[in-house]
Amino acid sequence: MTTTIATTVQERLERAHDAARGVGLLPDAAKADALRAIADAIEAATPQIVAANADDLARGRENGLSDGLLDRLRLDAARVAALASAVRDVAALPDPVGRVLEERTLPNGVALQKVSVPFGVVGSIYEARPNVTVDIAALALRSGNAVVLRGGTAAQSTNAALVDVMRDALAEFGVDPEAIQTVDDFGRDGAHALMQARGLVDVLVPRGSAELIETVVTQSAVPVIETGAGVVHIVLDSSAPLEWAEQIVVNAKVQRPSVCNAVETVLVLRDAAERLIPPVAAALQDAGVTIHGDDEVRALVADALPATDADWATEHMSLDLSMRVVDDLDEALAHIRRYSTHHTESIVTADDARAERFLAEVDSAVVMANASTRFTDGGEFGFGAEVGISTQKLHARGPMGLPELTSTKWLARGSGQIRA
Amino acid sequence: MTTTIATTVQERLERAHDAARGVGLLPDAAKADALRAIADAIEAATPQIVAANADDLARGRENGLSDGLLDRLRLDAARVAALASAVRDVAALPDPVGRVLEERTLPNGVALQKVSVPFGVVGSIYEARPNVTVDIAALALRSGNAVVLRGGTAAQSTNAALVDVMRDALAEFGVDPEAIQTVDDFGRDGAHALMQARGLVDVLVPRGSAELIETVVTQSAVPVIETGAGVVHIVLDSSAPLEWAEQIVVNAKVQRPSVCNAVETVLVLRDAAERLIPPVAAALQDAGVTIHGDDEVRALVADALPATDADWATEHMSLDLSMRVVDDLDEALAHIRRYSTHHTESIVTADDARAERFLAEVDSAVVMANASTRFTDGGEFGFGAEVGISTQKLHARGPMGLPELTSTKWLARGSGQIRA
Repeated sequence: MTTTIATTVQERLERAHDAARGVGLLPDAAKADALRAIADAIEAATPQIVAANADDLARGRENGLSDGLLDRLRLDAARVAALASAVRDVAALPDPVGRVLEERTLPNGVALQKVSVPFGVVGSIYEARPNVTVDIAALALRSGNAVVLRGGTAAQSTNAALVDVMRDALAEFGVDPEAIQTVDDFGRDGAHALMQARGLVDVLVPRGSAELIETVVTQSAVPVIETGAGVVHIVLDSSAPLEWAEQIVVNAKVQRPSVCNAVETVLVLRDAAERLIPPVAAALQDAGVTIHGDDEVRALVADALPATDADWATEHMSLDLSMRVVDDLDEALAHIRRYSTHHTESIVTADDARAERFLAEVDSAVVMANASTRFTDGGEFGFGAEVGISTQKLHARGPMGLPELTSTKWLARGSGQIRA
Repeated sequence: MTTTIATTVQERLERAHDAARGVGLLPDAAKADALRAIADAIEAATPQIVAANADDLARGRENGLSDGLLDRLRLDAARVAALASAVRDVAALPDPVGRVLEERTLPNGVALQKVSVPFGVVGSIYEARPNVTVDIAALALRSGNAVVLRGGTAAQSTNAALVDVMRDALAEFGVDPEAIQTVDDFGRDGAHALMQARGLVDVLVPRGSAELIETVVTQSAVPVIETGAGVVHIVLDSSAPLEWAEQIVVNAKVQRPSVCNAVETVLVLRDAAERLIPPVAAALQDAGVTIHGDDEVRALVADALPATDADWATEHMSLDLSMRVVDDLDEALAHIRRYSTHHTESIVTADDARAERFLAEVDSAVVMANASTRFTDGGEFGFGAEVGISTQKLHARGPMGLPELTSTKWLARGSGQIRA
């Protein structure tokens, strides 16, 4: 069976909107089984998906994509199997729809319930990696939503193949395939239509570079959940135990430097600088980290580069780390206020009062004491899947699981009550 | 004491942002007492407020404002006392900040807590009625937020007087007066700056006409909570008891026709049309309602006007009501999908299965069976105060109380844990 996708953007958005009704009313088991059917279909279509991916890779090479980007773009049989496996993991999660979040009976006898419902249509605008195509579609469907995808042009052939396979699998399973749409083939017009589709698309989740997210946030008339960059800080307090300081900073920088929860700047209180900076810096340098330090740091660390003003605001995404000595906790908090992207910050301290002050005063999605910033992650938090890490304050903040892809509605059951 | 407000929009937004930190950390009692100080100050300043209002009224008369608008604009001593009393009611509400919404301990021992925190800075763009100035400021402060106000030019002198009184009261009480800002004196530039103030303003709540809300939603780069218009429907099912049908429809239309939860369209299933329409229409007409009906309705109701296509999409805000006969529940649901603004819909029925189908399938903020749509209200829901009624699906949906003016953050307390 091959499903036929509509020819205009508007028609695709309308079909997604219509399909959302049916998908939103599916029972738990039907949604889970539909996802398992998609996973099976993806595995069965491995040759076609890898072939489509080869086209993208060839075009990428012609266009001079870096080896790193080509690797992010590449799908081989093992990676396709991993995609299918991720879909099965999402299928196994509990249904986020239909939870009763609040209940109250009014004095007049009207029974109120606030229940979780699907958003309706989730849109996503994202970049290179084709796994996002499958991830977002699976998460949206598991939470009873239709989805409209706009992936990067670099992965266009792969994404088209994946969308075809998923739509066909839905149709074969008996779910309206119009619940999965792509607007990739309309280029910038597709992205623009998606951002202006108020009334047809209920929420947009951009994923990718800071520039992409900034564009979507500022241009979209559809409500956006911002998943932002991480200029993440760790503060080493006067009382920080050396062992914790060393292992937390190294882990937060080195374990996976290219992700948003990796630390970018370490702030060391002056009265601990001589005790902590030389061994922490040595451990970092042993792990291949280049330190960008202020004058006081450079006096203590051989081979540290001078930190520029730009460094403090930079998400390095690499084995580079900015380090600064501050007078006290006040100055550390002021530095964080100025440069943080409000993703994750952590303090290393043996002083409970200072830890609690830091937890109370830092205005970030996740604020930690004595733990690696790498824990800001839906999987680590036990959500079973991650939609993204929200850095905005509306609707969702921090790692988002399936429940964050639902809205609510109030149900009122009466017996003829009227307002006095 | 007289506080001095900054001279530029940017400076005011920055001062609000800075003040938000202190306000956000105030304990419950301090926030409540600060509001009581504001209420006292408003009452004490009654003569100045009424005098400023007289200027607005005089200008309004010159500009040809209708009697209705002039009445909405007018503040006399009794209305000022009511403003102060509303502030005291907000002071008496429980603190929405610091609630622990979720707790979990990771296998590695890191203790996670999701707690409610203030947004930071709440912006509001609204129209004529000066009571919104005080309402929004009180609700924002009670939930630990700073506030930036942009009221209608018609109420400019009144709003300026109210903002002065509230700022002075805060300063006298020992809370940073910069937590209350207005950008009224910058005209359209003020509204524009507020909508573009990402990073300084955390959320915008527009209140007013559909045009105003549409403008803010489409132009704002700051996240918006949309409080929308209500094209509200009541369906009279085949099995609807006449008494319920009559009292619910009359109450929903007549009790207060100018508000968003008043009914605009009644859809009657054909097999109940002859039984229900004549008595329901008579009761409505006795209460002064003009019925706009389709042909079948007009055959049953003397003096019904013909309903135009525009009627189905119109929020009358008056004693006008559109009425249509539909084939069955499917057609009623299709009509609602096409014309509803997703605010509130209700069905009158004695058939539980149909009630549950309606509750499940209608995609509105509040869906009712056998109750008046006038119950969609923060006060009626028992929230103690109402920030507005959200018709969007992100963050808040339906009547919003103080908790909807908070965001969340995750706190993580560890003892040196790193990610494996």
